[in-house]
Order: sequence, then C-alpha cells, then structure tokens
Amino acid sequence: MISEITIKDEFWERYIDLIKNEMIPFQWDVLHDQGNITIDKVRNNASIPSDKSHAIENFKIAAGQSKGHHYGWLFQDSDVYKWLESAANVYRIAQDEKLKEMMDEVVDLIEDAQDEDGYLSTFYQIEAPELKFRRLFESHELYCAGHLIEAAIAYQAATNDDRLIQVVEKLIRCIENHFGSEKGKINGADGHQEIELALVKLYEVTQKEEYLELSKWFLEIRGQDPEFYQKQLDENRKIGLGKEHPFPINTVYYQAHKPVYEQEEAAGHAVRLVYMAAAMADVAYHTENKKMLTAAKRIWKNIVKKRMYITGGIGSTVLGEAFTFDYDLPNDTMYCETCASIGLMFFAKAMLKNEPDAEYAHVMERALYNTVISGMAVDGKHFFYVNPLEVNPESSRLDPTKSHVKPTRPSWFGCACCPPNIARTLTSLEQYIYSEMNDTLYVNLYMDHQGRVKIQNEIVEVEQKISLQSEGSIQLKVKSSNPIKLALRIPTWVENMVIKKETKEFCYEVIRGYAVITIDQATTLNLTFDIPVVMHQAHPKVKDDYGKVALQRGPFVYCLEEEDNGKDIHLIRVLDEFKTEVLNQCDLGKLVSIKAKGEKQIIDKEWEQKLYRGYEKPSFTKNDLTFIPYHLWENRTEGEMQVWIHKK
Amino acid sequence: MISEITIKDEFWERYIDLIKNEMIPFQWDVLHDQGNITIDKVRNNASIPSDKSHAIENFKIAAGQSKGHHYGWLFQDSDVYKWLESAANVYRIAQDEKLKEMMDEVVDLIEDAQDEDGYLSTFYQIEAPELKFRRLFESHELYCAGHLIEAAIAYQAATNDDRLIQVVEKLIRCIENHFGSEKGKINGADGHQEIELALVKLYEVTQKEEYLELSKWFLEIRGQDPEFYQKQLDENRKIGLGKEHPFPINTVYYQAHKPVYEQEEAAGHAVRLVYMAAAMADVAYHTENKKMLTAAKRIWKNIVKKRMYITGGIGSTVLGEAFTFDYDLPNDTMYCETCASIGLMFFAKAMLKNEPDAEYAHVMERALYNTVISGMAVDGKHFFYVNPLEVNPESSRLDPTKSHVKPTRPSWFGCACCPPNIARTLTSLEQYIYSEMNDTLYVNLYMDHQGRVKIQNEIVEVEQKISLQSEGSIQLKVKSSNPIKLALRIPTWVENMVIKKETKEFCYEVIRGYAVITIDQATTLNLTFDIPVVMHQAHPKVKDDYGKVALQRGPFVYCLEEEDNGKDIHLIRVLDEFKTEVLNQCDLGKLVSIKAKGEKQIIDKEWEQKLYRGYEKPSFTKNDLTFIPYHLWENRTEGEMQVWIHKK
Repeated sequence: MISEITIKDEFWERYIDLIKNEMIPFQWDVLHDQGNITIDKVRNNASIPSDKSHAIENFKIAAGQSKGHHYGWLFQDSDVYKWLESAANVYRIAQDEKLKEMMDEVVDLIEDAQDEDGYLSTFYQIEAPELKFRRLFESHELYCAGHLIEAAIAYQAATNDDRLIQVVEKLIRCIENHFGSEKGKINGADGHQEIELALVKLYEVTQKEEYLELSKWFLEIRGQDPEFYQKQLDENRKIGLGKEHPFPINTVYYQAHKPVYEQEEAAGHAVRLVYMAAAMADVAYHTENKKMLTAAKRIWKNIVKKRMYITGGIGSTVLGEAFTFDYDLPNDTMYCETCASIGLMFFAKAMLKNEPDAEYAHVMERALYNTVISGMAVDGKHFFYVNPLEVNPESSRLDPTKSHVKPTRPSWFGCACCPPNIARTLTSLEQYIYSEMNDTLYVNLYMDHQGRVKIQNEIVEVEQKISLQSEGSIQLKVKSSNPIKLALRIPTWVENMVIKKETKEFCYEVIRGYAVITIDQATTLNLTFDIPVVMHQAHPKVKDDYGKVALQRGPFVYCLEEEDNGKDIHLIRVLDEFKTEVLNQCDLGKLVSIKAKGEKQIIDKEWEQKLYRGYEKPSFTKNDLTFIPYHLWENRTEGEMQVWIHKK
Repeated sequence: MISEITIKDEFWERYIDLIKNEMIPFQWDVLHDQGNITIDKVRNNASIPSDKSHAIENFKIAAGQSKGHHYGWLFQDSDVYKWLESAANVYRIAQDEKLKEMMDEVVDLIEDAQDEDGYLSTFYQIEAPELKFRRLFESHELYCAGHLIEAAIAYQAATNDDRLIQVVEKLIRCIENHFGSEKGKINGADGHQEIELALVKLYEVTQKEEYLELSKWFLEIRGQDPEFYQKQLDENRKIGLGKEHPFPINTVYYQAHKPVYEQEEAAGHAVRLVYMAAAMADVAYHTENKKMLTAAKRIWKNIVKKRMYITGGIGSTVLGEAFTFDYDLPNDTMYCETCASIGLMFFAKAMLKNEPDAEYAHVMERALYNTVISGMAVDGKHFFYVNPLEVNPESSRLDPTKSHVKPTRPSWFGCACCPPNIARTLTSLEQYIYSEMNDTLYVNLYMDHQGRVKIQNEIVEVEQKISLQSEGSIQLKVKSSNPIKLALRIPTWVENMVIKKETKEFCYEVIRGYAVITIDQATTLNLTFDIPVVMHQAHPKVKDDYGKVALQRGPFVYCLEEEDNGKDIHLIRVLDEFKTEVLNQCDLGKLVSIKAKGEKQIIDKEWEQKLYRGYEKPSFTKNDLTFIPYHLWENRTEGEMQVWIHKK
C-alpha cells in the first residue's frame, strides 16, 4: 500500500538516529577498509574470512579501477547494497548532502562494475568468470541481485533518481537470458532466496508483470529437481571447471529438497526459509495463487506454533543456522539470528496482505521488539548475530559448542549480514504499521507517527500517539473525506482496553484480533488499557523451558541479568508479585523495569568438596529481582542473562 | 602387585564370555575386512575415514607382503594391538588353540612389519617415511607404541612367549635414539599420551629402570615448550616437508599448554588427560616423586569434585571430546567417551598405589559399572562411544549438534578405539580388585573370584562371594601363613553394614573409607548390609541437573527408558517411594529394577495450536515408573532415556 509516514516516536527515533549518526558512517568506514575497526569471528572456524570487509575494493577491482583479488564471502557485495538501502532510507527521512554524495559514489561504482551484458557479482567477475551461474548452491549471485534490487528501489524512492533501477533492469535481463524452463537455460534457483521477494517489490514499484512472473518462476522451480545443485557441479567437473564439493549438498538447508508447494515444515537455514516464505506470500497475493498461500500458511503455522522462541527468534541450531524439529527450543545453544527475525517480519507483513489476522502482526511485533532490536547495542556500534535466551560467559569462552553465543556484542563481523539488515529495517518501519484489505485500513503496529495512507483511492490522514510507560494509552487521529473502516489490532499484552471516540465509549466488533470501527471524516480515537506483567509458560513439550516462566510487559519480553541479580541465575526462582518501575538510566535509555519477589537456592557448606550427595530438600533465601527488557541485555557489563526463569 | 585371580562372577562372566565368543572373533573379521560388517560414522563429518578397518592390510603393506596405500586413521595400528591384548587376556583365562593361532598370525605380522631400526607405525612406513616423528601433534606413533607395549605384556603373560616383548624393546631403542634432551634429538612428546603408562607397566614387568625413566621423561617434557608441535611443522615446511596445519594447534587439547607439574585443571581431550594422569600417578609412585603426585592429585580432585558425571563419564563437550569448565555437565550434548571412563579407571588404580583412599576405588567402581559397560550392548556386538545421560532419538537425528549422541549402539565405527578398550579392560578386571600398601591388603572391588595375591612376600589365598540382588552380602575367605591386615572398602552405597568373623561381630577401625581388620591365618569374613535406593542430587552449580535427582542402587546408576515409561520423560517427576524388583529378562539378563511412584505433567487440550500461554499451575497424573540400570539402556527398542529426573 502507498503511504507517506513519518515516525515521531521517542523509542524508535533513538534507533533511527543511531543508524544515521553512528551506523551508516561506521559501516561506510568498514566497507572502505578505513578507520580503526575490529572485526570479530562469528565463531571459532578458521574457514571464515574475517580480516576486513574489502567490499568496496571488490567493486573497484570488478570495475577495472583497481587491481587485486576478491576478498570476503561470496555474498560480500550485498553488504554494499544493504548499506545503500539503509542510507537511502535515512536520506528519505532527512536529506543530507554529505550522505547523498556517499550514496552516489557507491551508485557510480556499481554502474561501473556491471558487465556489458548486465551481469554483476564481483567474486565471479574477478575470480571465476567461467563459473558465472554455475555454482548456484553457494554463489549468492541472485541473492546479491535481490539486495541490489531492494537498494535500487530505496534509492529511487529517496532521490527520484532511477539510475540504479536501470542497472537492476539490465541485470534482470541478463538473468532472464540465462534462466528459464526453455532448453539450454538454467532450470533452477539460487542457493539463497532473496531475489524472489525483491522482484515482487520491483513489480509493486514498476507494475511490470515480468518481474512478478520471474519471482514466481524462481519459487516454483526450487526443489523441482533436488539434484539440481549437484548436477551443476557434476556438469562443471565434466567440462573441467571448478572444484568438487567435499560433501553431499544438504538440500534441506536450501529448502530445495522438494517443491515449495509440498513443503510442510519450516526446515533448513532459517533466513533462507523466511525470505522464501515472504516471497511466497507476496506472490500468492499478487497472482491470487491459493495453493501458494496454503503452502506459505503451513510454513507460518509450523514456525509460530512449534518452532519460534518467545523472543520471536528462530533457528534452533548453530549448525546450518537452522530449524530442527517441533518444540526443540534450547535457550543456550540456539542460533536465533537477527536476520532471521527480520525475515520473519517480512513474512508476517506479506501474510497480512493476504489475510488480515492479528496473529501475523503479533508475531511481527514480537520479533521486532525483542530479537531484531536486541541485535544492536544502545551505542549503535555493536551487534549480535546470535540472540540467545540464556548466556553464561564462561560457557561461551570454554565450551566450544557455544562459541557462537557471544556474551557481548562484537563491533563487526567478517560476515556482516545482520547490522545493515537492522539498519534498513528500522529505517523503513513505517511500512509495517498499516495494511489494507478491501475497504478496511488495518493498524498493525503502534508507535508515534504522522502522515497519509491511500486506501481505495481515498487519502487518509493519520496520526498516532502512544504511551506504554505506566498506564497504556493510544491516541489515533484519522481524517478522510469519506467514511472508512478502521481495524485496530488488539495487542495480546493489553487488559481492560477501552476505546473512545473523542470521549465517548462505544461498541465495536472484534474480527480476527482487530477491533473494527467505522470512521467518518475526522475522528479521534482514544484507547486506554492496562499493561500487566504477564508470566508466560511454554508448551510442555519444550523441554528446555520445563518449570520455567518468561515475563512480558507490553511488546517486550524481559530477562534477568547478572548485573542486577548476581551470578547463578539458574538458582533463582520467581514468585508471582510484580511491580514496574520507570527508570531513566543513562546507559539503557528510558526503561520500564520489573521488580519481582524471588528466591535463590542456597549452596550450603556441605557442598564443599562434593559434586553429588543424597537428596535433601533445597533451601532458598529471599531475593529481590530486577528484570529488564530483553533487547537491552548486555549493554552494561558482561555477565549471565536468562529469559526463562524457574517458577516456584 | 602380583596376583593370580580367576573371576567367577555371574555378572562379569557374561561380559567375559561375550568378549571371548562374540567380540574377539567379530573384531578379527573387522580388522581383516572380512564378513558382513556395517561401519557407522562417529558423527556427521565427511573427513572421518569409515569405510572399512584395513588395519591388518596396513601391516601387510608395511611388511611388504601386500601392495597399496594405508587406509584409516593415523592410529589404526592400535586397533590391532588392542585386539591382541584382549585376545591374550582371554587366552590367559581359557587356553584355546584356535585363538593362539590367530594371535600368532598377528604377532608374526607385527614382527615382519617392524623396520630394521625398530620403527613401527604403518602409516608413516607406507605413506610418509620422511615424516617419521616429525608431526607428533597428530602422528600417534608413540600412542600406538604404547598399545603395542601393553599388548606385548599381555601376550607374554598369557603365553610365556617374549617375541613381542623383543619387538617392543627394539622399538623403544629406536625411540630412545630419536628422543631426548640431548642436542639433535626430539625434545617433545607424542600428541596422544599412552606410551607413558605403558612404559611403567613394562618397567613393572621387566624391572628395567630405563623404561620408567623414559616414561618420566615423556611426562616431564610435555608442555615445557608449548610451541613444540608448531615448531615441528614450521621446521618441516622450511625443509619442504609436509603440509601446513590449517589452524593454530590447540595445545590445551593435548595437555601441552604447560608442564604437567603446573596443570591445575582437567583440561583438553578427556582420554589424553586421564591416560596422562594415570602415568603421572604411576611414575610418582615408582620414583617417589611427590611433586608429580601432587600434580596428579590436583587433576584427580578437579575431575571428581567438579567435572565428572554421576555415571563416571567425563568430557563435557563433543568438540575436542574434552573437558570444559567446573560444574558444566550437560546431559544431552556431552561426550562421555567409553575410553575416557576406562582411562579414569586406570588413573584411579594408579592413585591407589600411592595412597589407599577409598574415594579412588569409589570412582573406579562408578566408572566401571556405569559408563564403561554401557559402552557394550548385551549382544556383545554393538557399542557406544558416547554415553549420554539424556537421549531423545529425534534430537540425535534432527539436531546436527547432537549427531554424535547415538540413540542406538552402532555395530562398529571407523574409529574403533572404544570396543577393544572395553574388551582388554573387562578381561583384566582382576587387576582392579586389590591394592597394597605396606602390610595391608586393600579390597577395592567386590565380585566373585578366587585366587592368590602376594603381599610383602606373603602369599594370601583369597575367595570372594557377593550378592547384591535383594539383601547385600559379601563373603570373603582369606588364608595366609602369617597375620596380615585387610582393608575392606566400605562402598558408598551400603547401609547398616555388619562385618562378622565367621559368625561373630567385632569392632573394626575405619581409615579413609576402609574397614581395617587384622586377619590371622584362615579367616572367613561375612559382610551383610542393606542396599537402599539412593536419590542423588548434583551440586547446585550444575545447571543441567537443577531440580533433578538420579537414582542409584549398589554401584549402579539408574535411568528411565521410554520402553517402560512412555514418551516425554522430561515431564515426569519422581516422588520418594521406591521398591526394587529382581527380574530375569531374556533381553537384559538378571536385573534389579526400581519401581517408583511418579507423576507426569498433563498436556491439556488448551495447548493445541499454542506454543506459549499465560502461566497456570501445571497438573499431573500419577505415573508408575520403572528404572533400570543405566548400563542396560538401549538394549530393547530405540527411545528416550534419562538419568536425571525432575523431583517433586
């Protein structure tokens, strides 16, 4: 839907400012290998390139402006594209000539690096032109193309300049020349989904059906021949090209084990899965493809009913950064990549186009307010890729199977997918607030903003003001020349909600989690509600949460940190009295903490020099507990953290 | 100490018969690549050689009897040596001409494969003679030499033939020519400790001081220069030999990060650590080296007070099959290798030489009756390397970080270290029963046996009969021409123990866990005691055992299996009423099971289509529980298993 909205929310503006003032310039330095930047290892694995970014230099070499070898991941180009997309988003919010110059330098370089025939992927251009599109399981050529498309759309929206769109259209012609069901063309898709969702966006902007068709084609060809990737490698070997892959290709990892229509579960690499599912939902919407929608919905259900952390994190295992099986949600070995939760937001947003059901927005909000923003420190310069629900710094250091679970946010990684993904998402948050269906405008997220949305050729002026600090209130001003229907998502975390038109209470119907209200011309709605502290429990089959609870207040899941609660958090159990406290901590910002009564198991003297002993009923001492919002963890000192806490 | 003892114990004879009748012939076929044998992968790792053993063929190639390449691990030779040691142990128990022929075929082959200068290691002989002793971090040359020494000792003890001892002495001369503190010699030790403990054994048999000295030298040189292994590789590269190692050598893994005297903790690869520590204790004893004993004791304490599972398993992580940190004892991701618990028995036995403290024997027994024998199925043909305390077959299949945790015992692995290690240990169990100190004979393990031990030139005839089925009783007949002191270990698992001489009760002193009794000439001691079911709890810092108990009766730790108790064992909690039931199950043998009252959390209908919900006090149903001894798990059908069970 078309909207022009400006976010004026204290909470979110802090993030947007951090992105503008800290992250964009910081990442600029990273991409240019300048400045004093420490690049950390994602985990202990010697095969991970991590000395420097080299991303801009790769483009210069591909453009012939510089000499040398490609360095970094096969998807290193996408770091540049995601930076550009974020920069464009920021520029759209607040024009800044310095930023425009930086963007244009990058756009020039991309134009210059593109091959005559439209091809663009610096690794293959520099190191292995003979292998272009011939190692799709790992090449990320179309993945990068997808990110370039998204960057081009953002850049055009921000600057009205279609130079990058032209690069993109030339690249797509190149792709169309190489891919397709016709004899002699490549009949398969990239090993990392992304172009599929980007092509739909491009279709939405350009209205050119071919992009929608190409997206659908990539979705439908996936998994038709599970041997496709292996056959490419065999074919390469036959004609003397390229190296062998040392072990069998795990097609589930790539969601290429069966056609998307037949995929019953969320399986394989989590980011790939949600990027694919988002595109499925998008394509289903635009092509009215019910079968595709059913398949997307099946994947959605499997995620949110069986495979999602309470923080909106997904990906239960580090190996393959992947889904495992139903109810397998370990809290201290999981992956829960920031990018995967961002992808889950994409997926939710795309599902909302198809059917207005508040559940999609609930999950979108859960991912956004917890795992997504947990990915970034309050200084805007340190980032989590992995978002654990339980951390012990000693484990991260001394148990090699937890080396991926960082106890502190590193400044930058060799694989820099997450930070720029956060940046582009948080600078385009206004796109997640509303959705439409027929004559109804759906309000999915609540944050202070002002602007206009267009629904069925009707321009609607909207303004929102929200307070979640002590008592909850939302004021919503809506103005349109004709009556429209407004559907307000009722968050799962409110109680005793009252909706008033101006000052009068009135009756409203609740449909699939939305309060549906007819609005005539200019209306002010005042919503008031309590925001209780809710103790959640997980499905009993979630072994790792047995006997434990997780606190939530508003959209925020809470955690205990060692800083406030001491060591050995696993020995703490929570009672059920809570009160909230609004703090303004210089290091954490404006913060609602939860104070709770708890108990902590005593380690008595008898335990000295003993590892096991006969059972005695354990003793506890009273313990005052302080919970903070999960996304704020590890912004003070390194220490233990835990979301799921034993319940007395 | 010198002893001639025959075990006549129903429980242990079943194992010894299985080894004799099933395992030795089975492994013979494996080593010869004959028969229809499935070789499983230890875990999902393409770099692990696992098609076949090829071990005998490697010797034939090295001997020039056959042509081809070496196949398998660098330590493949040790499979042959461990087979030979087990076979010799079996032959000593019951002579069998067929077995003698098989052994002699192997001995001939070993003799034939040895180089003129005494060198013996088929990989380097066949594939890389220029690298002999030049890649010690991984070469396992001295590790294999250690196993050859142990095999030679067993072979001589069983046959009175010293042919292999001669091979061994020639090999040691070769080693002495290459290693030493003198200029020009190699001033470092093998990457896998084993020769150290073997050399002490050889010293004990031959009384040749040089072997003890060499063992001490290998122990003392370790870690003196933590860069030693890397320097070897650098030196190789300098003179154009051999490949680079792709990542820095983790010296902690090899316990080569500091001198053994300075090692404060049990760190690195668990098997390496306990093999080293056993040798340290042995050398300390024979050389009266207090500093070495102190170091060994420090490692012992760290293991048993902070890093050992209740099953006697050690090695908390699969990566490096290693120790991690204090109280880190996860039940479902650990390694707990069978070989490591065997090594822990070696270590305990060696410590008992130095100081008679029942704790060493308690731990030795714990390892033996639980993790060690859990390594072998009741059919004698299937083996665990990894001995988890909690298994869910779905996790093992679908969570790649648990691919090493097998839900069923595979028949054979490419890396065949554990099965032959079980075989050689269980066929030499009589060596673990007694120890001596000054004029006292210590009884450390209880099992039916008969024989003679020599203490201070006194020959003592001993006979033991034990019953643990319902009430506990031990009868001990001792006969010596002069009075001796007998120290009977008081197991941790007895209650109300009464010791009678013939029929008369009497007073005895308890010193460091032993009941010390003076015996004159021929005495019959009758011990009677209760064997209660004990509920153990773990130190509160063991996060994974929080709120849980583990049952033990006698030396056996117990577990719940899905076969008896249904799925979702984590939802079960145990109350505190137990009764025992003696069963004679055809598939599990004579078995004392524990029947207990329990409760199981109900998964109510409200949970359908929900992953999280507001906390409600969970409901439970009554549940009759059946616990079986841990070592017998997975001998019926595949399913869940759990040692630590929630306690109400």
